Amino acid sequence: MPHILIIGGSDAGVSAALRARELDHRTEITLVYADEHPNFSVCGLPYYLGGEVADWRSLAHRSAAEIASHNLELLSGHRATAIDPVRREVEVRGPAGHPQTLRYDKLVLGTGSRPRRPDWPGLELPRVHFLHTPGDGIRLGRVLDEVRPRRAAIIGGGYIALEMAEALLRRGLEVSLILRGRMPLASTDAELGEILAKHSLAAGVQIFPQTRVKGIKIKGERPTVVGEDGFTATADLVLVAAGVVPATELAASAGLTLGASGAIQVNRRLESSVPGIWAAGDVAESYHRLLQQAVFLPLGTTAHRQGRIAGENAVGGNREYPGTLGTQVMKLFGFGAARTGVGEDEARAAGFQPRSVTITAPDHKAYYPGARELWLRLTGDDRTGRLLGAQLLGPATAAVAKRIDILATALYQNLLVEELNDLDLAYAPPFSSPWDPIQMAAQAWVAAGER
Amino acid sequence: MPHILIIGGSDAGVSAALRARELDHRTEITLVYADEHPNFSVCGLPYYLGGEVADWRSLAHRSAAEIASHNLELLSGHRATAIDPVRREVEVRGPAGHPQTLRYDKLVLGTGSRPRRPDWPGLELPRVHFLHTPGDGIRLGRVLDEVRPRRAAIIGGGYIALEMAEALLRRGLEVSLILRGRMPLASTDAELGEILAKHSLAAGVQIFPQTRVKGIKIKGERPTVVGEDGFTATADLVLVAAGVVPATELAASAGLTLGASGAIQVNRRLESSVPGIWAAGDVAESYHRLLQQAVFLPLGTTAHRQGRIAGENAVGGNREYPGTLGTQVMKLFGFGAARTGVGEDEARAAGFQPRSVTITAPDHKAYYPGARELWLRLTGDDRTGRLLGAQLLGPATAAVAKRIDILATALYQNLLVEELNDLDLAYAPPFSSPWDPIQMAAQAWVAAGER
Repeated sequence: MPHILIIGGSDAGVSAALRARELDHRTEITLVYADEHPNFSVCGLPYYLGGEVADWRSLAHRSAAEIASHNLELLSGHRATAIDPVRREVEVRGPAGHPQTLRYDKLVLGTGSRPRRPDWPGLELPRVHFLHTPGDGIRLGRVLDEVRPRRAAIIGGGYIALEMAEALLRRGLEVSLILRGRMPLASTDAELGEILAKHSLAAGVQIFPQTRVKGIKIKGERPTVVGEDGFTATADLVLVAAGVVPATELAASAGLTLGASGAIQVNRRLESSVPGIWAAGDVAESYHRLLQQAVFLPLGTTAHRQGRIAGENAVGGNREYPGTLGTQVMKLFGFGAARTGVGEDEARAAGFQPRSVTITAPDHKAYYPGARELWLRLTGDDRTGRLLGAQLLGPATAAVAKRIDILATALYQNLLVEELNDLDLAYAPPFSSPWDPIQMAAQAWVAAGER
Repeated sequence: MPHILIIGGSDAGVSAALRARELDHRTEITLVYADEHPNFSVCGLPYYLGGEVADWRSLAHRSAAEIASHNLELLSGHRATAIDPVRREVEVRGPAGHPQTLRYDKLVLGTGSRPRRPDWPGLELPRVHFLHTPGDGIRLGRVLDEVRPRRAAIIGGGYIALEMAEALLRRGLEVSLILRGRMPLASTDAELGEILAKHSLAAGVQIFPQTRVKGIKIKGERPTVVGEDGFTATADLVLVAAGVVPATELAASAGLTLGASGAIQVNRRLESSVPGIWAAGDVAESYHRLLQQAVFLPLGTTAHRQGRIAGENAVGGNREYPGTLGTQVMKLFGFGAARTGVGEDEARAAGFQPRSVTITAPDHKAYYPGARELWLRLTGDDRTGRLLGAQLLGPATAAVAKRIDILATALYQNLLVEELNDLDLAYAPPFSSPWDPIQMAAQAWVAAGER
């Protein structure tokens, strides 16, 4: 009986296991994971910490029992420490630390990522937190409940930094956001970051842009963030949200080739340089469908999609990963902010000739109650007319995420900007206009090119 | 100087005029329309009549002045009565009834549709209403305000019938819905109609299914709907919502070929059988992108898209109408109900081998506050795996319209059901799940086929 071993109990690993089982009722499938919380929605942690979700336990996409009910063997609390790809064996250590050897025929690696640790000192100090694992969230939640900090300093300007700024504000803390760049969300065109910064300021977040942190020190009992040019920020709590790096130690032990990004290099079928070993999720590179090259873009959605494909291929399938478009959305202070595809800088770097328009339009017919303004920026290639990307901001109630998904679906198929006007989209006055705002933007883009 | 004449001041005509002007700053463009309300959002009438929109004047997409500001000549209150395609002349009559002759080089017909008048007697009686034009809406509004009817009978089960049932209920009337078939929304698979019927009943609408109306009579001062098998329903107000027919009299006067549906036959560039005359909107047939044949499917969105293309081609463009997918959405009792593509019956009639799955799933992660259930039915072709259509129902706040749009965008490109899982869609817990419900449905469809 063949045996599939899957390492990692988060999105990629669990998706791989479920899909392999769905296609193959006989193969033995074992899922090994290091902590006690498989398939945990780490994206939900800010909502738990902000008090919108009462119990962290509800953040699991599925319980261990639910996963196991699909006839999967679960080895929780077991950390894989080495792979021998010649003997097809993995060494794992359980809670007691004793090594144990597991044989495999096919191996799927979904070991994920870990927080990037900046190279300045102070990361080990008390009240300096990272937020990446369920354990991180539970610990930080306990600090909020028990220590009742008054001031928080957040280092970073990405999704987690912004979501945690709102969460901690909601919990009554004073919050400082310490940014390296001029604006949060450095991965998008600056305009969107500017709007989010404005909303964050209005909500009470203190923002320190263009601040290079040199380290964290303890002053009395409180951690102080120290930066260049005399910057200091003393708080009761520091959250370091400086991105993530792929957790590739195990892959390295097996001699798997890593890509330029540092993540595991995989082919379009997600197989690594060693036949019989697939990689999925944050630990693996992603093929970018628009840039047509491997990138490191760790996202939960990608982990789910890659896991499903790796699981299918591990039981004999031959499916290609269709690629990522970097589609993302976040909720912030009652707004949804979303993007898909590439921004102008990325597009230019990739050899496109990007041209963008920015429009605002009501999310539905203005005469119907509750209409509110959407902000939409569309980027296309001036040479070919091809859609390259979009950024969208609007009230959380205005279907921002699903509107960006329409554009992501158009991008998936390499549509021209003009073709957005060819889409037969749904209209009723409470939901849209006869031309949806994404089509209004497309028309503005086309008209600008005709002038 | 060439002269473009556009007949019809609703969505198709105005879209044609605006697009023609956008592309050609010199051509003389005249828009002739019969009433005083160009570019009026008739889709908004139920919301005005239900009291959600206070002033019917706000229902105009654009005012006459706004349209004219694009350097367009507007002839309001002028009805076109005959076309001479050889001399390239149109006879129009103004408010006083005097005929006048307008020359044209290119002609765009956007004369729209009119309510279908069933062949039973009583349609002319007092308190028997149709709802199609701005005037119809204003008149009905006046009746509601001044006569204060207590009971309404609505004949029909389509979008307008349902929306008006809610509107009149909101105004405090008792409402009966008289259906020819078993369920409202006969154009969708029965399951969705059943759910909408259930919601309508729960809200207080009386539903009389499978009722064949024979006529309307007056009993005392009140109209009574009389049907087969002794059915009668007496009301203070009867609304006949039995669909629409294309208004083709003018086209017939020019000898334009009509299609089997009765609407003007056009090629993919929306040119009629007479060169130099284009038709767009309700008066014209629509190419159905999935069925690959001409259909009569009058929708405001189609009118906008066709008008834009007819306008472009009238100034020398060569753009093809990409086709309709029958994407529609309505708001009903706090829910959104949407469809795109074809249902099982339509698919089977067109030679597909349809297979459907129905799922329910929360609109976003259940742990995040406010999650509510979506109902989703997905139809694919069992032979090819191709997506054929979808029907979706959920709370009006759950991005139902934009979710159906993702599917419409997939249909536009002939995606396989399985490919929905390849889409890189946006995820954050307040907006979706790592697999959006449309992807959950796709996976259920695929898995059912693998069994």
